[in-house]
Amino acid sequence: MADPFQPAPPDSFAAVDLGSNSFHLLVARIDGGSLQTIDRYKEMVRLGEGLTEDKDLLPEVSERALACLERIGQRLRGVEATNVRAVGTNTLRQLRPETGFLEQAEQRLGHPIEVIAGREEARLVYLGVAHGLAIGDEKRLVVDIGGGSTELIVGQGFKATLRESLHMGCVSISRRYLPGEKITAKAMDKAELACALEIRPVRELFRQSGWSTASGSSGTIKAIAAVIAAEGWSDDGITADGLAQLRAAMIDCGKLSALAFKGLSEERRPVFAGGVAVLRAVFQALEIQQMRASDEALREGLIYEMVGRVHHEDVRERTVATLCRRFDIDREHASRVRATALDLYEQLRDTWALHHDNYPKMLGWAADLHEIGLAVSHSQYQKHGAYLLRHADLSGFTRQEQDALAALVLGHRRKFPVDVFTALPRPARLCGRRLALLLRLAVLMHRGRSASAEPNPQISAEGETLQLRFPAGWLDDHPLTRLEFETEAERLAAAGISLELG
Amino acid sequence: MADPFQPAPPDSFAAVDLGSNSFHLLVARIDGGSLQTIDRYKEMVRLGEGLTEDKDLLPEVSERALACLERIGQRLRGVEATNVRAVGTNTLRQLRPETGFLEQAEQRLGHPIEVIAGREEARLVYLGVAHGLAIGDEKRLVVDIGGGSTELIVGQGFKATLRESLHMGCVSISRRYLPGEKITAKAMDKAELACALEIRPVRELFRQSGWSTASGSSGTIKAIAAVIAAEGWSDDGITADGLAQLRAAMIDCGKLSALAFKGLSEERRPVFAGGVAVLRAVFQALEIQQMRASDEALREGLIYEMVGRVHHEDVRERTVATLCRRFDIDREHASRVRATALDLYEQLRDTWALHHDNYPKMLGWAADLHEIGLAVSHSQYQKHGAYLLRHADLSGFTRQEQDALAALVLGHRRKFPVDVFTALPRPARLCGRRLALLLRLAVLMHRGRSASAEPNPQISAEGETLQLRFPAGWLDDHPLTRLEFETEAERLAAAGISLELG
Repeated sequence: MADPFQPAPPDSFAAVDLGSNSFHLLVARIDGGSLQTIDRYKEMVRLGEGLTEDKDLLPEVSERALACLERIGQRLRGVEATNVRAVGTNTLRQLRPETGFLEQAEQRLGHPIEVIAGREEARLVYLGVAHGLAIGDEKRLVVDIGGGSTELIVGQGFKATLRESLHMGCVSISRRYLPGEKITAKAMDKAELACALEIRPVRELFRQSGWSTASGSSGTIKAIAAVIAAEGWSDDGITADGLAQLRAAMIDCGKLSALAFKGLSEERRPVFAGGVAVLRAVFQALEIQQMRASDEALREGLIYEMVGRVHHEDVRERTVATLCRRFDIDREHASRVRATALDLYEQLRDTWALHHDNYPKMLGWAADLHEIGLAVSHSQYQKHGAYLLRHADLSGFTRQEQDALAALVLGHRRKFPVDVFTALPRPARLCGRRLALLLRLAVLMHRGRSASAEPNPQISAEGETLQLRFPAGWLDDHPLTRLEFETEAERLAAAGISLELG
Repeated sequence: MADPFQPAPPDSFAAVDLGSNSFHLLVARIDGGSLQTIDRYKEMVRLGEGLTEDKDLLPEVSERALACLERIGQRLRGVEATNVRAVGTNTLRQLRPETGFLEQAEQRLGHPIEVIAGREEARLVYLGVAHGLAIGDEKRLVVDIGGGSTELIVGQGFKATLRESLHMGCVSISRRYLPGEKITAKAMDKAELACALEIRPVRELFRQSGWSTASGSSGTIKAIAAVIAAEGWSDDGITADGLAQLRAAMIDCGKLSALAFKGLSEERRPVFAGGVAVLRAVFQALEIQQMRASDEALREGLIYEMVGRVHHEDVRERTVATLCRRFDIDREHASRVRATALDLYEQLRDTWALHHDNYPKMLGWAADLHEIGLAVSHSQYQKHGAYLLRHADLSGFTRQEQDALAALVLGHRRKFPVDVFTALPRPARLCGRRLALLLRLAVLMHRGRSASAEPNPQISAEGETLQLRFPAGWLDDHPLTRLEFETEAERLAAAGISLELG
């Protein structure tokens, strides 16, 4: 597999999942709607164990993780770069950006790494699990126990309708409540109670959501299912009874390292008891009787998502449309700004080498959303918009994309916020700054909010010296627009950008 | 007037308006729905002139303002403290809180001063003007030119439907574009163009709003109307023609100090030309033909508002209800939290001397709104909620009230944010901290979000040592709630608050 002499077929996709417990690679292609595995690789890196109080990584864990990423990077070589997505979850969400781990990780992997929010993770897990199940009309509950977070999802068909990401996972609960060698009834009680507290605020929501079947993804749940089946405690997946017997047997044994269940791997042992506590608490809180383990998970969801984007079903489109509705955006105005911004982009794409597909998409969405902050208040609305886009739960968008979108919206008027762009991840800095420039000019063109068509100006650039040309005499007939562009030229000059009108 | 031997009647109200140009006092009572003036006082303090680049006040302007406030304070002595409202507008909005001016001003005035947002100012101006006009069904435009901001409002009856506050006023435009003695056509052009730019983003909105009559409040507009009438340039209020003649005459004269129009006071002269530029730009942008000057303004609006609150028509109730709808808050849950919070408040009101009417109102609203941040994202939603409440445009609320509401919502879960309360204005610190405590306990009681009635616990306090008592055996039957209150006790201990369960 992943033999350099036998590269992956050109229509293959790769998903890399950097979890708090394991790192996974999946290379696959879609054939007739279902997924054909080409390569699969997993290492239990236990990144979450290395997270320190001040949100840095212990050096030995960091080394372990980087070495694993290098191995995964080698197996990725045959896959087209545009067909690869690598995502980080709970531990990477918590890590302070200044530690520089993410940059090193990207370098060793040879691909950008996207950090995704908990509820986005839940959405992708559901997408993966749903594709693995027979399609039916019933509502399904999906549970995914990660190293640092647990995702609960209810959905129907391929759409997740209820998603939560809770701060508990097999690594974090094991570390906190079962840190030594011993397994006692008291420690298990404490761990289960802590999990119950975590679930409690969403318990009623999930109980009343009307799900009828329960599936579990993740290594923890697969291991529990394997143990319960191998020990003969249930012949129908994971049951509440089977879990109770498992717990009793663990306490009887009393020692983590001595757990000798069939189906439990050596390396899973240290975090197994924590995983059992999480699942027991979920069973109890949501009154689950029976659960099937699913082979699909986050990485399968990522693959289906990429294939969807290729076929023009970009979830992000729907997310932006929902935001526009929810925050009552003036869509006519936004679409005029969008058209002008994309026209300017077309004119400068080659000069500025803005060739990535994602650029016009991001610019268009920023235009759609540039007035979202008005839902909060008119005064400083560009700041409120940036706040909303940075913190909102946006399906399909990664953290980094949300930050970039927020930067574009923040920079669309008033002072040009140079620092905001230099704070973006390196590859996004220059293009972010330039896309923001195009958005500003488009917004200025439509500042009068008039429905009548304004001419799109001709634009050319040499580096950051811009030439903006209007039809002859047009600027003289529109003195307010002229004054606005003159004021804008002063603002941009302060940011080292030259704007000439003609 | 305001003679200590002849105090104001007990049903009189007082409004103090600390504008960027003038400070005003109005003492009045409402008789049969209309306003009877008891005392009226005005000084042209020109606070806006004293605002420095770094948002401090020049010492001589600060002294002038404080001396004026002391005089106003003396005239206020006969009015019941609960019937007084003093509000600050544009210049006070811009002033950095660290300058300490506000505290000194409150001390000299003898009353708290509320800083209100521009659109709130617009709402109150409209309320004042609308009461002074014959009630009709037509839509009205109201323009108020202050020292540092100009408010544009369209409304019907007593309700403002469209409100904007623009960053231009007679003081700021005069300072920037007509700073010396000379008045030239070129300087007037520049000033008018700058104002046109400021209006432009809202121009279409106001043009298409369907207003049929225009009124203007503020000293600037009254002075312009007086000059135009006295000079015989119009016999029907302010007209576009009359304004053009006024401008021509000013340029002919050429010198600010030489302006010798009938009806123009000596002290208005230095900011008159700026005011004319603002009004000319508004006339042109909104295509106004004719405008009547109104005697009513912000201070009349404040009086009607206070009378309304006494008669249980608190605009803030409507604002909170609108927010709950707009941000899709779970109102059943919120009302359960509200009931428990107010029950705890009743039990501790006397012990903690929380007697002001506004306390239970604010606590109730904070309960209504404590989950508003969920509209942004579940993760850290208390922070998003605080952000929204601090920055949203909330009719009827002052800045300080919004900050207090934001502090209560921020403090309703997780770490108790001691610093947030110490950062509130002095009188709000201790009560803010204590109301937040009550809200936290109420939220915890309902953390299970169950519709079944939970018993309200008995609460007692000695300083900040709290005793919480549940019905016998109840806590044993609800181990999750017990654990939650135990965790809460640890969190509160870190803030120096002791919580005992019994």
